[in-house]
Amino acid sequence: MDSEFRLIISCPDRVGIVAEVSSFIASYGGWINEASHYSDPVSGWFFMRHCIRSSSLPFGIKAFKDKFSPIAEKYKMKWSLFDSSMKKRIVLMASRESHCLVDLLHRWHSKELYCDIRCVISNHEHLKRLVDAYGAPYHFVPTSRKSKENAFERIIQLVEDNQADLIVLARYMQILPGDICDTYQNRIINIHHSFLPSFVGAKPYHQASERGVKLIGATCHYVTEALDAGPIIDQDVMRITHHNTVEDMIRLGRDVEKLVLARGVRSHLEDRVLVHGNKTIVF
Amino acid sequence: MDSEFRLIISCPDRVGIVAEVSSFIASYGGWINEASHYSDPVSGWFFMRHCIRSSSLPFGIKAFKDKFSPIAEKYKMKWSLFDSSMKKRIVLMASRESHCLVDLLHRWHSKELYCDIRCVISNHEHLKRLVDAYGAPYHFVPTSRKSKENAFERIIQLVEDNQADLIVLARYMQILPGDICDTYQNRIINIHHSFLPSFVGAKPYHQASERGVKLIGATCHYVTEALDAGPIIDQDVMRITHHNTVEDMIRLGRDVEKLVLARGVRSHLEDRVLVHGNKTIVF
Amino acid sequence: MDSEFRLIISCPDRVGIVAEVSSFIASYGGWINEASHYSDPVSGWFFMRHCIRSSSLPFGIKAFKDKFSPIAEKYKMKWSLFDSSMKKRIVLMASRESHCLVDLLHRWHSKELYCDIRCVISNHEHLKRLVDAYGAPYHFVPTSRKSKENAFERIIQLVEDNQADLIVLARYMQILPGDICDTYQNRIINIHHSFLPSFVGAKPYHQASERGVKLIGATCHYVTEALDAGPIIDQDVMRITHHNTVEDMIRLGRDVEKLVLARGVRSHLEDRVLVHGNKTIVF
Amino acid sequence: MDSEFRLIISCPDRVGIVAEVSSFIASYGGWINEASHYSDPVSGWFFMRHCIRSSSLPFGIKAFKDKFSPIAEKYKMKWSLFDSSMKKRIVLMASRESHCLVDLLHRWHSKELYCDIRCVISNHEHLKRLVDAYGAPYHFVPTSRKSKENAFERIIQLVEDNQADLIVLARYMQILPGDICDTYQNRIINIHHSFLPSFVGAKPYHQASERGVKLIGATCHYVTEALDAGPIIDQDVMRITHHNTVEDMIRLGRDVEKLVLARGVRSHLEDRVLVHGNKTIVF
Repeated sequence: MDSEFRLIISCPDRVGIVAEVSSFIASYGGWINEASHYSDPVSGWFFMRHCIRSSSLPFGIKAFKDKFSPIAEKYKMKWSLFDSSMKKRIVLMASRESHCLVDLLHRWHSKELYCDIRCVISNHEHLKRLVDAYGAPYHFVPTSRKSKENAFERIIQLVEDNQADLIVLARYMQILPGDICDTYQNRIINIHHSFLPSFVGAKPYHQASERGVKLIGATCHYVTEALDAGPIIDQDVMRITHHNTVEDMIRLGRDVEKLVLARGVRSHLEDRVLVHGNKTIVF
Repeated sequence: MDSEFRLIISCPDRVGIVAEVSSFIASYGGWINEASHYSDPVSGWFFMRHCIRSSSLPFGIKAFKDKFSPIAEKYKMKWSLFDSSMKKRIVLMASRESHCLVDLLHRWHSKELYCDIRCVISNHEHLKRLVDAYGAPYHFVPTSRKSKENAFERIIQLVEDNQADLIVLARYMQILPGDICDTYQNRIINIHHSFLPSFVGAKPYHQASERGVKLIGATCHYVTEALDAGPIIDQDVMRITHHNTVEDMIRLGRDVEKLVLARGVRSHLEDRVLVHGNKTIVF
Repeated sequence: MDSEFRLIISCPDRVGIVAEVSSFIASYGGWINEASHYSDPVSGWFFMRHCIRSSSLPFGIKAFKDKFSPIAEKYKMKWSLFDSSMKKRIVLMASRESHCLVDLLHRWHSKELYCDIRCVISNHEHLKRLVDAYGAPYHFVPTSRKSKENAFERIIQLVEDNQADLIVLARYMQILPGDICDTYQNRIINIHHSFLPSFVGAKPYHQASERGVKLIGATCHYVTEALDAGPIIDQDVMRITHHNTVEDMIRLGRDVEKLVLARGVRSHLEDRVLVHGNKTIVF
Repeated sequence: MDSEFRLIISCPDRVGIVAEVSSFIASYGGWINEASHYSDPVSGWFFMRHCIRSSSLPFGIKAFKDKFSPIAEKYKMKWSLFDSSMKKRIVLMASRESHCLVDLLHRWHSKELYCDIRCVISNHEHLKRLVDAYGAPYHFVPTSRKSKENAFERIIQLVEDNQADLIVLARYMQILPGDICDTYQNRIINIHHSFLPSFVGAKPYHQASERGVKLIGATCHYVTEALDAGPIIDQDVMRITHHNTVEDMIRLGRDVEKLVLARGVRSHLEDRVLVHGNKTIVF
């Protein structure tokens, strides 16, 4: 696909925003591939995402930003402009389970996900062989009780060295320190293996079995310091019956986890997710 | 909810349409509740739906139309402008089965569907009592082989007398004559009890059972002269197993039929369905 | 359908149960329409449901019970035997909202649910007209703060007078006193408008909106004294987006509520639900 | 899990089958892990699957078969007895697309699928690297117009050399010759990328886009000589909108294809699929 500029805007709602933005784009001959609007009647905020074919514009991203700035100021916009041809840099983190990790690697490898997977960090060694097949560097960073502090220093170092735009916790079973959550606000995506807010914390399938639910689920969300409480990007569920043991749930749940995480990561990579308070707008 | 004007546009895609339309709206202080765009890369057509708070504009629907006409001409638009406070007039048609009919009546009665159900036409007498409870006039128009021609004359008369904006075939098991289909193009909604294009025509659940499918479905579509081949508005399915007999499918299928028909009718009533060729854009 | 006897069994698992039960049935020429087994590896209990064509047996339900008793004792079974031709007597309870109530009445009226709806009890008056159309007696029992105690006495009286086998809370927004819950253990079905255990208690859609979930749901469960914590019979969800307001959720959720409640009630009426601890086996 | 014997039975329905079979099992102290029955009221056939803990029986599979034979003859059963500890040997076949292939390899590698993937056959060379990572032999067998006949001879040879119990067409885009379909009746599983019987044959997503459907699907079925017409094992769908191009459908559809194929293969490996005529019973 031709590259496009993605203009993402949040601002207090008022008359004339769409007119001003679209007139700006049209005045330079910009061809709009896709446009989405949402006016939140509760918060009184307005959200907007435009994809403009880059080749239709007479200037690049830097000039676009300069020229658009006055409009942004006028409407007190929070805004970003992304070039779709710039691959976002991702650091993947995983623990023992490989399903989410390999799923993302395979979508990347088969060009379904447009991004740059810089490396994989794991607190286990055994996933190395599969990761190698996909050609991604593998860093084993153990997180035993003793080594934990060092581990997170090493992890931050790796994330910084790789200039990561996004950290994806592909079933990484460790809780990240609060300062990492803060530094990478809305840039760390986690997959939780329950339909949040049900079954926060450890062993959600065991909790689900205990409660006797008839559906199990998974939730993809941005990580905040509060455990499993960050803005939800996507969720899904699948039906189970009394026949299904906890082991079945763990097995069946993998398919939902993979799918929901992949959808959430894709939405993020396409700059479709706008966070407002603790909620998301997903265009 | 406050009333709103809904501006529905289809036209060949080109630069500046959104700018022109939104500037027009903004120039009169129009507050946009909702806006949806779609640019079809295959056909090269552009589709658009705006909901503008009526009270924010200094004029009514007549003046809106007059003022907007030049823009519409400039861009060769097919367009409509609807006042959301004007209830669309509906004629419901049913045969022996009551589930879709009562479902729509109940949604109307509980104010979930904003419309004016003018009357029910059925080729059976026994649904009268339930329809009476909802306060809708009931017309029994038999369609025996002999009376068929007269029946459709009578039906056209009823539709015209009621100035129907929309005819809904709520499991009306008769094929409408071609001239009715033509006259009311994109204004007759049918629910077909299969996941089209599988199982066109009669007894789709029997066909489904014969083929051994693992999902059954329903399709809500606009009626055209070609049987079960009109533009699809909505579809859904439900899982069945080898345990389910044809009778089970008929029973289970009712829930999908009701839901899909109600969603399709609602989308139509909210002016969300744009037809292009044999396909729909549902905003 | 021909009538059938439904033999429902729970007992500690051991070798020979199925052989003993099926040999018993075969020895009298009993034709099995349907049989389901479940062996719970965690609790070590065994669950079983047989449907035997009544006309294939040389005796009636009384003799069946007498002859089967020794087997039941031998295996320490909790067991019941139901005659499918005996309609279960239901008391429906509703508050202001009509969707679940009318849905159940319509399924009963169109013979989809085989039961005897003895009456409707509501703490509001306005649903009477619709209930009348279905020919079910309507009892208005107000539950103002003052009248509450009297109200529940009146309700118990109505339930007893009607010899109800089952009480269905079709969005009855009052909490039942603990003694009613105890007396009618596993015979009161409630529909809760969330995907339990998320959003227990009041205003679950408001809670859901607050948390920013991407799916809303409904849960059909037996009522226990602990609020929204009884054994779950069925659950389902539907997808929402950031566009959907709390009002949308309330509207959309109705379709899930109706469906899940109807499925749960049907399962109960067909003697498919076995309760063990706080969990259900649904054959 | 402990190994178990799986006894699979189809026979004309009559009184006493369950009693006879379960008494046989009980008489040897056999512990039943799982039992499923289905009596088809249309065909008058009875279907049954028992899983018996091997260690609870005083004999092995050979003696089991000998002892059970008289019962099987008495009831004119078609029957099989499988030892769950014997891995079924699979030959995977793929063309250009890797998603189904890698999905199955990964489920096998992570021990989710209990089987022996003997080799992968592809008419393209480029998937070799990924297959190597999973340690499965890779055979490149080109199928140009000229080489086709030789290709299928080579394929048969590979299948025979590997004593394959099952051939899985993981998006293998070639039509198998009729004699292979006959020889491996109900032992070749295909994934078709549409919701059959809609969109038989080539380019089903293009057909789906042309027709304007609102759901796309995938179908897992046994291969017969008639194209895409064999017994259906499993199906599923996902929702699309007017926004989704054919390319989107191809991408989104992959997730349904993978899931449906994996479920179908798993059901087959667990001896859950019984074929009767052109339909399946999936226990």
